[in-house]
Amino acid sequence: MIKQVFLFHEGNKALKGLLGSKGANLAEMTRIGLPVPPGFTITTTACIAYLKSQSMLTDDLKCQVLEAMQSIETETDRIFGHQRNPLFVSVRSGAQISMPGMMETILNLGLNDETIHGLIAQTQDERFAYDSYRRLISMFGNVVFGIDKDVFETCITQMKKTRRVSHDTELTAKDWQAIVVQFKEQFQAHAGRPFPQAPNEQLWLAIEAVFKSWNIPRAVAYRKHHHIPHDLGTAVNIQSMVFGNMGDDSATGVAFTRNPATGEKALYGEYLVNAQGEDVVAGIRTPQKISALAKKMPAVYQQFEEIATRLEEHYKEMQDIEFTIEKGRLYILQTRTGKRTARAAVQIAVDFVREGILSPKEAILMVDANQLPQLLLPAFDEVSKARNRANLVALGLGASPGAASGKIVFSPDEAEALAAKGQNIILVRPETTPDDIHGIIAAKGILTSRGGSTSHAAVVARGMGKPCVAGCESAKVDLKREILTIQGREIRKGEVLSIDGATGEVFLGQLETVEPRIEDEFEMLLSWADQYRTLGVRANADTPEDARKARKLGAKGIGLCRTEHMFMQHDRLPVMQRMILATDAEERQTCLNQLLPMQRDDFRGIFRAMEGHPVTIRLLDPPLHEFLPNMEELIEAVTALRILQPFSEELKEKETLLKTVRQMHESNPMLGFRGCRLGLLYPEINRMQVEAIFEAATDLVAEGLDIQPEIMIPLVGTAEELRRLRVQLERDAQAVMEREAVQVPYQFGTMIEVPRAALTAHEIAEYADFFSFGTNDLTQLTYGYSRDDAEGKFLSAYIEQGILPRNPFETLDTQGVGQLIAMAAEKGRRIQPNLKLGICGEHGGDAQSVAFCHQGGLNYVSCSPFRVPVARVAGAQAAIREAMEKQQAPQKPDLISV
Amino acid sequence: MIKQVFLFHEGNKALKGLLGSKGANLAEMTRIGLPVPPGFTITTTACIAYLKSQSMLTDDLKCQVLEAMQSIETETDRIFGHQRNPLFVSVRSGAQISMPGMMETILNLGLNDETIHGLIAQTQDERFAYDSYRRLISMFGNVVFGIDKDVFETCITQMKKTRRVSHDTELTAKDWQAIVVQFKEQFQAHAGRPFPQAPNEQLWLAIEAVFKSWNIPRAVAYRKHHHIPHDLGTAVNIQSMVFGNMGDDSATGVAFTRNPATGEKALYGEYLVNAQGEDVVAGIRTPQKISALAKKMPAVYQQFEEIATRLEEHYKEMQDIEFTIEKGRLYILQTRTGKRTARAAVQIAVDFVREGILSPKEAILMVDANQLPQLLLPAFDEVSKARNRANLVALGLGASPGAASGKIVFSPDEAEALAAKGQNIILVRPETTPDDIHGIIAAKGILTSRGGSTSHAAVVARGMGKPCVAGCESAKVDLKREILTIQGREIRKGEVLSIDGATGEVFLGQLETVEPRIEDEFEMLLSWADQYRTLGVRANADTPEDARKARKLGAKGIGLCRTEHMFMQHDRLPVMQRMILATDAEERQTCLNQLLPMQRDDFRGIFRAMEGHPVTIRLLDPPLHEFLPNMEELIEAVTALRILQPFSEELKEKETLLKTVRQMHESNPMLGFRGCRLGLLYPEINRMQVEAIFEAATDLVAEGLDIQPEIMIPLVGTAEELRRLRVQLERDAQAVMEREAVQVPYQFGTMIEVPRAALTAHEIAEYADFFSFGTNDLTQLTYGYSRDDAEGKFLSAYIEQGILPRNPFETLDTQGVGQLIAMAAEKGRRIQPNLKLGICGEHGGDAQSVAFCHQGGLNYVSCSPFRVPVARVAGAQAAIREAMEKQQAPQKPDLISV
Repeated sequence: MIKQVFLFHEGNKALKGLLGSKGANLAEMTRIGLPVPPGFTITTTACIAYLKSQSMLTDDLKCQVLEAMQSIETETDRIFGHQRNPLFVSVRSGAQISMPGMMETILNLGLNDETIHGLIAQTQDERFAYDSYRRLISMFGNVVFGIDKDVFETCITQMKKTRRVSHDTELTAKDWQAIVVQFKEQFQAHAGRPFPQAPNEQLWLAIEAVFKSWNIPRAVAYRKHHHIPHDLGTAVNIQSMVFGNMGDDSATGVAFTRNPATGEKALYGEYLVNAQGEDVVAGIRTPQKISALAKKMPAVYQQFEEIATRLEEHYKEMQDIEFTIEKGRLYILQTRTGKRTARAAVQIAVDFVREGILSPKEAILMVDANQLPQLLLPAFDEVSKARNRANLVALGLGASPGAASGKIVFSPDEAEALAAKGQNIILVRPETTPDDIHGIIAAKGILTSRGGSTSHAAVVARGMGKPCVAGCESAKVDLKREILTIQGREIRKGEVLSIDGATGEVFLGQLETVEPRIEDEFEMLLSWADQYRTLGVRANADTPEDARKARKLGAKGIGLCRTEHMFMQHDRLPVMQRMILATDAEERQTCLNQLLPMQRDDFRGIFRAMEGHPVTIRLLDPPLHEFLPNMEELIEAVTALRILQPFSEELKEKETLLKTVRQMHESNPMLGFRGCRLGLLYPEINRMQVEAIFEAATDLVAEGLDIQPEIMIPLVGTAEELRRLRVQLERDAQAVMEREAVQVPYQFGTMIEVPRAALTAHEIAEYADFFSFGTNDLTQLTYGYSRDDAEGKFLSAYIEQGILPRNPFETLDTQGVGQLIAMAAEKGRRIQPNLKLGICGEHGGDAQSVAFCHQGGLNYVSCSPFRVPVARVAGAQAAIREAMEKQQAPQKPDLISV
Repeated sequence: MIKQVFLFHEGNKALKGLLGSKGANLAEMTRIGLPVPPGFTITTTACIAYLKSQSMLTDDLKCQVLEAMQSIETETDRIFGHQRNPLFVSVRSGAQISMPGMMETILNLGLNDETIHGLIAQTQDERFAYDSYRRLISMFGNVVFGIDKDVFETCITQMKKTRRVSHDTELTAKDWQAIVVQFKEQFQAHAGRPFPQAPNEQLWLAIEAVFKSWNIPRAVAYRKHHHIPHDLGTAVNIQSMVFGNMGDDSATGVAFTRNPATGEKALYGEYLVNAQGEDVVAGIRTPQKISALAKKMPAVYQQFEEIATRLEEHYKEMQDIEFTIEKGRLYILQTRTGKRTARAAVQIAVDFVREGILSPKEAILMVDANQLPQLLLPAFDEVSKARNRANLVALGLGASPGAASGKIVFSPDEAEALAAKGQNIILVRPETTPDDIHGIIAAKGILTSRGGSTSHAAVVARGMGKPCVAGCESAKVDLKREILTIQGREIRKGEVLSIDGATGEVFLGQLETVEPRIEDEFEMLLSWADQYRTLGVRANADTPEDARKARKLGAKGIGLCRTEHMFMQHDRLPVMQRMILATDAEERQTCLNQLLPMQRDDFRGIFRAMEGHPVTIRLLDPPLHEFLPNMEELIEAVTALRILQPFSEELKEKETLLKTVRQMHESNPMLGFRGCRLGLLYPEINRMQVEAIFEAATDLVAEGLDIQPEIMIPLVGTAEELRRLRVQLERDAQAVMEREAVQVPYQFGTMIEVPRAALTAHEIAEYADFFSFGTNDLTQLTYGYSRDDAEGKFLSAYIEQGILPRNPFETLDTQGVGQLIAMAAEKGRRIQPNLKLGICGEHGGDAQSVAFCHQGGLNYVSCSPFRVPVARVAGAQAAIREAMEKQQAPQKPDLISV
């Protein structure tokens, strides 16, 4: 006889495979002596045996269940099905891995036309008893016999109409009694049989229903999609019911063991006397703070405090506890890790170490690294937000966290002008382009009506740590009239909006913000992380200011300095445009000669800010037409001028410009004439950049500084591209160093961002000192998704509908993109064992992706300055987990499952 | 002592590694007894030894060379350096693999101030002797001492000025004698030493120069790029000079063993009496036909005929022979495989079999499969082309072969209207879009000023077997004024142009074309090929007409039927547009209901034409905005209407339309909302298509026909996409079959065209009966090249400059894209051993790519109808080569070198 049923006190948290997650947890709490209502778990293997057999509960299983029921009866001193002293139980499914869409709970099992009288006697509450009974009938009907919930809801709606009341709570005991009669009729009509009165029959049917729910199509599809084996099966938990509404010595509530907003060490929660959980949710009575319980039921409160401490110490986590007090007796119904703000998470982690609950290693593992940037950004004061709830006019995509209030303007130029006068500005655009960069820099926050979380506005704003709400589709932007229309309401230039880039909320008017400050606890946590981390952390920074910010946040170098942003600056763009439109080499060179000193100054500033650490500079990457005026606007202008001023000079000029813009236009610029393709066919641009880099570096080295430039060639797809550029540009670099008579240690390398580069990495590695994985573009090309288009057009829907488990632009797709990275790393290092490997896409600041980079043996990750703490902590977490796994299993598991 | 020198009669063609390609060939001809001027070869190992040592010719090597020289002297009865009876030799490099940029030839070695008198005595031609001497000095100076050729050219130019003549041939013996003096002065000035008079010194220096040329940077770079090992070395060929200008019993000429235009079995070539090779090239004297030699020197002619036959039989190839007759004695200087037209190639291959020279297998291998489409397309009559040379006004990209003349028009509508009246039309556009499809169908040929060989115009034209010249950048298309400007010349609508889509030539006026016909020999060759071929061949066809054409050319099924072209037809586009612009589901469904019967008719026609074979139908692939009007034109229209008719209904309508077009606009449509992404989020379109397919199929199966539909889902990147679509669409298919009570055998599968699909093929294969590699898109995404943009913007330059060895859109990139294909094949078949694999990109009609598909174990290739013969022959060639390799080496080599 195989043991198929485990009483709670027979199990423990290690038996998740056999008892499911919920069952193991209930067993664990029982085991450590907490007051859990007695119960038992039917194992997952029983479920599998049932499904494999002719789908009949075996006598053996039934015997074991009945024996366990007897055990509950003894413990509760109640009897299942007894008319006067009845025991009621709940039945819940519980697989090893949580699976949405599986069977729900059935409560109050054991209620029938007879036992209800026992319940009435126990509770002295007829209304409650009938309410409980009708709940059993509908839950049971729905779950076991698949009867539509609406069938039952209609009866209640009808009853409320008849009684002229609008809330369920206004129905009386009599009403519910009548409804129970109707429910039973409906049950008979739809199930083709009467509602089972025999408690054991209720029990067998409920258990079978849970077993069967393992194989409903939704559950099967979910498992397939998430690669969960189909032969795990689900466990069934059967537990005696307790009621918090048995009088004034009864209550129900929830509490956190610490303050989830601040991390302060004090119970935090609320409870309701003489109530059930659903009463708290209904919100008709106002619950009391948990501290009030200390006065009302001091003994119970003290017991609860002790349990809270116990649970924290046992689970080594701040807990979120559900409890019920039945006639002065405390029951713990559930405990789980409590959700908290970033601030609380850090405080709690550090406090746990101080209190001796956790080691620093464990404390690091406890923190959700992705949450940390919250700590570095201003946020709206929660009180102010609550007060302004009515002014919440739109909800876009929370594209770059942080909060800002300011006057709206529609033109980047105006944003710049007004910001220069000290005004707080929110820049509003349909979407942004590199032309708008000065406006983005000047504004406190960005609001766009189009584009997703990887649109230009979002990416740039995140890089700057500036709030951005993107893709706010309910907002119409009229650039001509300078009016923003939301829900029919016209908001004019100069009116004040507040945007929350974390939540996507847009408020009318000014909200108060709270400024961030780096707390000591945060510093401490980060310093612990650095002790365990082996992965390097750099930042993506294009300006000296960003470089300084990154360094302050712990970045040890720059992994990506994008040079194109430098050309977008107001004083440089016209020169850049002249260079692009130049008709002869001489004019082009003249422009480049003008740009060179500007770039040199940029590089000097960045090198100085990152002195002592490597700075990876990516040579010009975007297609040249990105620097030219927008084609659509030009077409409009030319069309209008042709009608209104057909003989004007302006028309002639604009027509010429339009012709060039049209010639340079590309139908898929992402796949176009950019990166090293430009560098090979217009070598003079790269040459100017390399000269500027080495002029800056030699200057500073001459001053005695430690400067480590790394020149990075973008968009390489074949080894020959890199070979040619390296030969040519190294010659230019040498020439500068010879001229200045200063040697600078430097490296040449490439981005791996085109799938073919990963596939032929063994060839490319011959000419590279380092590879930097440009995972943004690599993800675009591996999936065939355009970052600029996908989000708004189909990516959000894909994620919502579960076609994709997550956004591959946020968290690295380890199966596809990751496979290419692992391949390139292996092929590259086979040729160049010392090849330095890093990643500089947005993924460098995502915790899961950072873990992948650690496992894949990369040397460093690089991310926007504000995400540097994420990388520091996530890198440490990955190293700690790896060490733990190595201890457990000597051989390292395969990185990539193919 | 290692043998470092081989006399010609000591070697043979198998010794290419040791003697280089040229040396082995000269040895082979000598070996089989042909009259080759005596000579010898210094081995490649001698070269390597020289380069590895202190770069000194060893005494050992010198001894062996001198010994070989003596042997030549004996055979020629002349002496190297002898004043009266001098021997002269040529020195040429000759590596195993032909490498451009290596050292050139030095002729006339042994000439000096003394031996020149011997030459004068031998030839009785003082002018010739001094001309030969000055050639030696300049060649030697340039090759051995790196003196710029211009240094010498200037002397000649100066002399002609002084003599007031314009051609070299007008200079006299005296003039040349004077030039020799000047050349020697220049030599001294630049080389810092006198021109070496000692013949042996000339010899040693020339040999060293050849050795050293192996390591010049250009050669090293070339080898790196083409993966040629650096340690092969080059051989040196030293051969006695013969002169065809020693009187009327001397001559020089070239001849093909068969007619290279028609394949007719008859010597075909020309010769000049008393002349050297360069006189033929100079074109001052008109050469005589080779047949004339039969009368002039019957014995020599007969000998030559015998040699020609001998060489053909020996090399088993039609030969292109260079010969010289010196004083009545025939010398063969070179023989190589002759270039020929496709027609000649087929004729010769079949004739060789008939003559017993080749087996059918060998005959198949002899044909260049890629040439075959020439046979199916009209071409300009060569005579007419030559006569119209002056009318050649532009040269674009030969994007789709074939020739056409017609009146130019600029609008697809007008093309359709005029073609309906029986006029021959050339459609001229800046580039084409799917909107222009009816114009392309109507036109005889297409000319575009933009776009590459994989632009829309090119791809569509090739699919239709219609000539297209694309990317003709010197042509400016003014659609408004309907004028084409080429080289400042305005060509108006209605004027006649002739375009050659094979060469990219554009002529003014009408040229005569010759129509193609499938000759019996072609049929025979193809039928042989089918016997050896194991790879299946299908066609890409979107209409019943194309399907019939493909079937006639030997396609056994359709590998790609693109359904979008069906929606582009004139009567359907408006319905399609209404469907896209529909604001509610009902209106959308109404439109789809209108489209369904049209699609059903299309499918019925295609199924019927391909009865008995599978037909792979790809569900809708392009983004929906491709069916809407052009955004730029709409902006123009709206801007103009706003000024001119601000209150008109038309403005309102156009503004609404523009708004939608703008909303749907994508910055990178290639990476956008299309393929299965559309299918998942707008399921009703796919459903309509599947219903149409199965309604058509059930109809025909009911008639008793054998119909094999294969439903293909495009752009799949994750298994979940395919799983969902398959579940949903198979349900729709089943519903139709049940309704019609007819079962149709069908398959569901997917394109592999996104890199991620290849990387996760093991997951995708779970839901696929077949994979079809969409190598066009797969190439775009693997390289990150946009087909529409790359060619004109950088791809041509990349190929010209040797950055890319070839256009990856024409010939499959086996290293990168091919690696993904091999990976997907392996991963897919691991899960589904019977998974059917095919390729349906343009590569399916390219011989090299077809060979790759055979080696990779694919089941079939699919290509445009006109390239079906290419695939049939190339498939056979690959199978034959594989069988030969297996015989040679029992184990199969790795497909992919990683």
